[in-house]
Amino acid sequence: MTAAVFSNPILAGLLGDEELSSYFTPASDIEAMLVFESALAQAQADEGLISLDAAKAIAAHTLDFTPDIAGLAEGTARDGVVVPELLRQIRLGLGEEAAKALHTGSTSQDVIDASMAMRMMGVSLVLDRRLDALVDGLARWSIDAGSAEVMAHTRMQAARPTRFVRKLSAWSDPLVRCRLRREEIAPRAFALRFGGPVGDRADLGNKADAVATRLAGALGLWPAPGSLHSDRDGIAEFGNWLSLITGALGKFGQDLALSLQTENGELSLVGGGGSSAMPHKQNPVGAEVLVTLARFNATLIAGLHQSLVHENERSGAAWTLEWMILPQMAMAAGAATRTAQDLLGRLSLAEPYQSG
Amino acid sequence: MTAAVFSNPILAGLLGDEELSSYFTPASDIEAMLVFESALAQAQADEGLISLDAAKAIAAHTLDFTPDIAGLAEGTARDGVVVPELLRQIRLGLGEEAAKALHTGSTSQDVIDASMAMRMMGVSLVLDRRLDALVDGLARWSIDAGSAEVMAHTRMQAARPTRFVRKLSAWSDPLVRCRLRREEIAPRAFALRFGGPVGDRADLGNKADAVATRLAGALGLWPAPGSLHSDRDGIAEFGNWLSLITGALGKFGQDLALSLQTENGELSLVGGGGSSAMPHKQNPVGAEVLVTLARFNATLIAGLHQSLVHENERSGAAWTLEWMILPQMAMAAGAATRTAQDLLGRLSLAEPYQSG
Amino acid sequence: MTAAVFSNPILAGLLGDEELSSYFTPASDIEAMLVFESALAQAQADEGLISLDAAKAIAAHTLDFTPDIAGLAEGTARDGVVVPELLRQIRLGLGEEAAKALHTGSTSQDVIDASMAMRMMGVSLVLDRRLDALVDGLARWSIDAGSAEVMAHTRMQAARPTRFVRKLSAWSDPLVRCRLRREEIAPRAFALRFGGPVGDRADLGNKADAVATRLAGALGLWPAPGSLHSDRDGIAEFGNWLSLITGALGKFGQDLALSLQTENGELSLVGGGGSSAMPHKQNPVGAEVLVTLARFNATLIAGLHQSLVHENERSGAAWTLEWMILPQMAMAAGAATRTAQDLLGRLSLAEPYQSG
Amino acid sequence: MTAAVFSNPILAGLLGDEELSSYFTPASDIEAMLVFESALAQAQADEGLISLDAAKAIAAHTLDFTPDIAGLAEGTARDGVVVPELLRQIRLGLGEEAAKALHTGSTSQDVIDASMAMRMMGVSLVLDRRLDALVDGLARWSIDAGSAEVMAHTRMQAARPTRFVRKLSAWSDPLVRCRLRREEIAPRAFALRFGGPVGDRADLGNKADAVATRLAGALGLWPAPGSLHSDRDGIAEFGNWLSLITGALGKFGQDLALSLQTENGELSLVGGGGSSAMPHKQNPVGAEVLVTLARFNATLIAGLHQSLVHENERSGAAWTLEWMILPQMAMAAGAATRTAQDLLGRLSLAEPYQSG
Repeated sequence: MTAAVFSNPILAGLLGDEELSSYFTPASDIEAMLVFESALAQAQADEGLISLDAAKAIAAHTLDFTPDIAGLAEGTARDGVVVPELLRQIRLGLGEEAAKALHTGSTSQDVIDASMAMRMMGVSLVLDRRLDALVDGLARWSIDAGSAEVMAHTRMQAARPTRFVRKLSAWSDPLVRCRLRREEIAPRAFALRFGGPVGDRADLGNKADAVATRLAGALGLWPAPGSLHSDRDGIAEFGNWLSLITGALGKFGQDLALSLQTENGELSLVGGGGSSAMPHKQNPVGAEVLVTLARFNATLIAGLHQSLVHENERSGAAWTLEWMILPQMAMAAGAATRTAQDLLGRLSLAEPYQSG
Repeated sequence: MTAAVFSNPILAGLLGDEELSSYFTPASDIEAMLVFESALAQAQADEGLISLDAAKAIAAHTLDFTPDIAGLAEGTARDGVVVPELLRQIRLGLGEEAAKALHTGSTSQDVIDASMAMRMMGVSLVLDRRLDALVDGLARWSIDAGSAEVMAHTRMQAARPTRFVRKLSAWSDPLVRCRLRREEIAPRAFALRFGGPVGDRADLGNKADAVATRLAGALGLWPAPGSLHSDRDGIAEFGNWLSLITGALGKFGQDLALSLQTENGELSLVGGGGSSAMPHKQNPVGAEVLVTLARFNATLIAGLHQSLVHENERSGAAWTLEWMILPQMAMAAGAATRTAQDLLGRLSLAEPYQSG
Repeated sequence: MTAAVFSNPILAGLLGDEELSSYFTPASDIEAMLVFESALAQAQADEGLISLDAAKAIAAHTLDFTPDIAGLAEGTARDGVVVPELLRQIRLGLGEEAAKALHTGSTSQDVIDASMAMRMMGVSLVLDRRLDALVDGLARWSIDAGSAEVMAHTRMQAARPTRFVRKLSAWSDPLVRCRLRREEIAPRAFALRFGGPVGDRADLGNKADAVATRLAGALGLWPAPGSLHSDRDGIAEFGNWLSLITGALGKFGQDLALSLQTENGELSLVGGGGSSAMPHKQNPVGAEVLVTLARFNATLIAGLHQSLVHENERSGAAWTLEWMILPQMAMAAGAATRTAQDLLGRLSLAEPYQSG
Repeated sequence: MTAAVFSNPILAGLLGDEELSSYFTPASDIEAMLVFESALAQAQADEGLISLDAAKAIAAHTLDFTPDIAGLAEGTARDGVVVPELLRQIRLGLGEEAAKALHTGSTSQDVIDASMAMRMMGVSLVLDRRLDALVDGLARWSIDAGSAEVMAHTRMQAARPTRFVRKLSAWSDPLVRCRLRREEIAPRAFALRFGGPVGDRADLGNKADAVATRLAGALGLWPAPGSLHSDRDGIAEFGNWLSLITGALGKFGQDLALSLQTENGELSLVGGGGSSAMPHKQNPVGAEVLVTLARFNATLIAGLHQSLVHENERSGAAWTLEWMILPQMAMAAGAATRTAQDLLGRLSLAEPYQSG
């Protein structure tokens, strides 16, 4: 057991997700912040708030900027956010004008929230692609299964036979709905949250909304009328989405674990896990992990909803709680989709149940 | 402290909601179930599965049927659901044909889930109307507030002045988004969940989908391709919606409690609560209750997500957990919207902060 | 589904607990509050702070006092607590001196917390007695089971045979530990939380601690050095205890549901629940309900821990959240112990597994 | 935001804990497992179950064994636990007899649970020492504060003055109680959970309990009558303890954030955090972080209670969930105690409130 199961070198194969973890490295976080500062300068130059030269200098300097990580750590410990120290380091390599133009009218939260939104949108697209693949895989199994029947169970008791394609639909339909949901929540979950020191965009005067619109466009985020600094419903909503995915796959995993029971045996799984003491056993490890990940996200979602009580114009307490929870929920959804895909490739109806 | 704060005669004034509580009485639950059985019979008659006479007899008998509540309680304790005993009681007053036609091809979960969906849709409309009123009220305050300024606070520290209308937007915008979300989730949250004993609608043969479509129409619910007996994402999603409402109002309440502090005093509230020991105090009870209700729903939402792990064709364990959680979340959203409306009518900017 | 499953006339047979529910009626709450005021007056008279006559008048009047419930509801809605209005009503029937002596140096929280502690201690004793009975029942089954063997399952797979008494120990041992835990937590969970308006007992001068000690003794509660008004660890700890009980019984229920599967059949249960559509089925309703109750309390415990963030000398927000959560957790523990006892009386090893 | 806030190089200064993190590295986990295998062999040799030579060979080989981490990762992904592959690697360097003696009568869960218990006991001792230091620090402040008075606040309103030492007690007393609780829960939380393949210690015959007692002694753990493989109350209880610590410090942090408000100013804090946009601000970052950590653990505790529903003799689903939650809770308690100590060194009563 370690405190970082997703990145732990031993547990990552079981609970991690290599593709998604690239969105959560310090390097990718910093890169997104640098992109933000560069795009902000360009947007402000386009609106005439800073000079084009300053914007160019910022773009050139941030393009391959390598921060002093130890310094960032110290700054974060002191300030609660990494941005003041990151800006200080960046400014050391800028001329006076560009140094002054950098981050004009912005604040730490703008940067951190944008980095999060950019990466979460990327995460959502990876997950969406995997959901699509899972739905496809289940549809293909439906075709193979034809009119095969299995025993339906209600309240843990054998009820009566039903067509196996019904079970496949029950596994697939929620994933289809999750794909639709992604489109619905995108404008709120992946919005640009830009507002300056107290969220009112006041330092940018009458160019504020134009800058925000340009910035959102450059970052691939959705524009929003306000700063959303203290309105975190879009964040909680994205967490809900992640937990609906793991929940749907948790039901899939629980059903598999039950169908793969020695006493049931309607399904068969190639390549289950081994035991240190009982070599004859084939453990449906992946099926159990899907249940674990569902219950993990079902636990964490409560924390994001607690964070909705975000007092005043910025709550360090509520905001930091999001940092501790949301990335983990995304990683769990990654591990669940990865595990489900792997299981799907190894599952089949046991022979007696295959349709004639 | 009692185990039923929403219906407790003493606490209901603080934490209850008279209008919403009418959706959660045993009587309204039973009435919805009777409507279901009657509409099901009619839909089956329309599709030629039972005789029109049987459907009429069922409609007439269920219209003013009064069950023996003690019997229902005993039946529920035994069967885990009220439906078998309710049907037994109903059948006592029906002729042989109608008694046999009643509930044909259906199962307890169809009835209970439909009753829940019908009432939750009603609840959502009440809440939607109140959100609309709150948004209106905040918009009116915006007009009154004009260019008035208050101190913005970040990380619990005074930051710098901002226009008060910005705070009003931060309170109002999430409510506007909740109204939009209601429309998005409606087809999933308020769907007819109809499938018969094991969720495959098998007993209704090739008329199954036609019956389901008619039934959904008659009950004012959305049709769904499958039974959704074991796919509970639409339920969790409705819980999310309720918690986004209480969360948004919890932020409102927390902001009020901070602004109403003796040391701050930017807002003034007419008619705060009294203390048993310090008569000079005016307690912002409603503001605190909004925080309580937000944290309550943020706690409970985790349980609905746990229920997504709904094994096999019907999980008594996961399903019953929904019963224990969802109605409470709805009541909390009711109490929060009611309390917020009440507060809004008693709040104003303290005089020094009003715009000239 | 209703908002008050424990007291709902239909669901109470399944999810309620008649014996425990008597601790959570408004009447029992008010009675405990009246006992508090009477005992407080006596303790203050004993310490010479008020006259013995006043104490006697208060005792006599509160002994059979019947409050106006509608008035209490209005007062609670206004003040956030019932106490100011309750005191007002009581004082109407007291002479001037006794009216003034009533509640001297005390505050609403003293009264409400004491009422809660007195009733929670009662609840804990009922549960303790039931745990004892469950442990006894399982021990008797152990004797009957002798050397009978059943299949052990790990990771949902048959592993190898083990003696059935091992399973019985796994069900019983956590209950034994819960009995021990009750004794450990009692001084903290069932402490007198007495402090007056701001928790410092200042109004009682140098007699404050003597009054508190007398009062604790009279109420059967544990004395505490401070008021504990804002230190809620003893409350959360009691919630933990309740959830450890439901969790242990949830494991019992889950094991039963698995052993009672049609495909397994090692155990047999007399009198399972019926289905509205499949008369042949015997549903292990009670086993599933144990799982439900475990997951319910596992959800709610998070809210009590959130309430530990109890700001300043009294947080209306955090305190009210306790009221919404703790009684429900107690009721769930009641329903779980009751259900487990009922199941235990109906369970046996299926014949092939009984020892020779 | 990253998925591993505790070990993230940037955030670790804010949310991490260097001392505690050493308990959660893969290296420390593996080391504890090697110690277990070595101690198990010795205990079995002492009881005559394996030869002393085999035990010595195992001890010598495991003393400086370096596993192939990539292999462990693959094995864990396949088996759900690291142990089978770890044993395979160890055996490569052992002679035939020792290879056969290694891990005799044991199972993966024995190893992993023991490693966890050994490290959690270490964690608890670190935390206990810090609690002691915090209690000391608050006691020293009490002496300094003398009769100084500050305003007490109830329901977010100024109530009336109280002695500052009362606030100090409210912060300190729960920490004192947490120290006592550690002693109470130790035999259950830090027990040896040893049972072999299905938890019944059957492979060790009549030497089983003697081996377990020796093993517990060697590892510094508490002996337990059964295997506790599927009875997880001691684990949840340790989680409760961790969350009671963060909760108590969360109240401390919330109180500080309120007292440090610009509008209040009773306390003063040297060295608050800076803002990227408002250089004049001094943010009480540590105080907010304490609230964050309290709400984080209050969220996670629900997951450990869900894990109590641990089906059969071993639940991969419930067990793996513990791995994802418990270490994080320990790290949060570490960060909270570290942060509180740091704050305590920088806090003082603002001058007007200091006693004469």
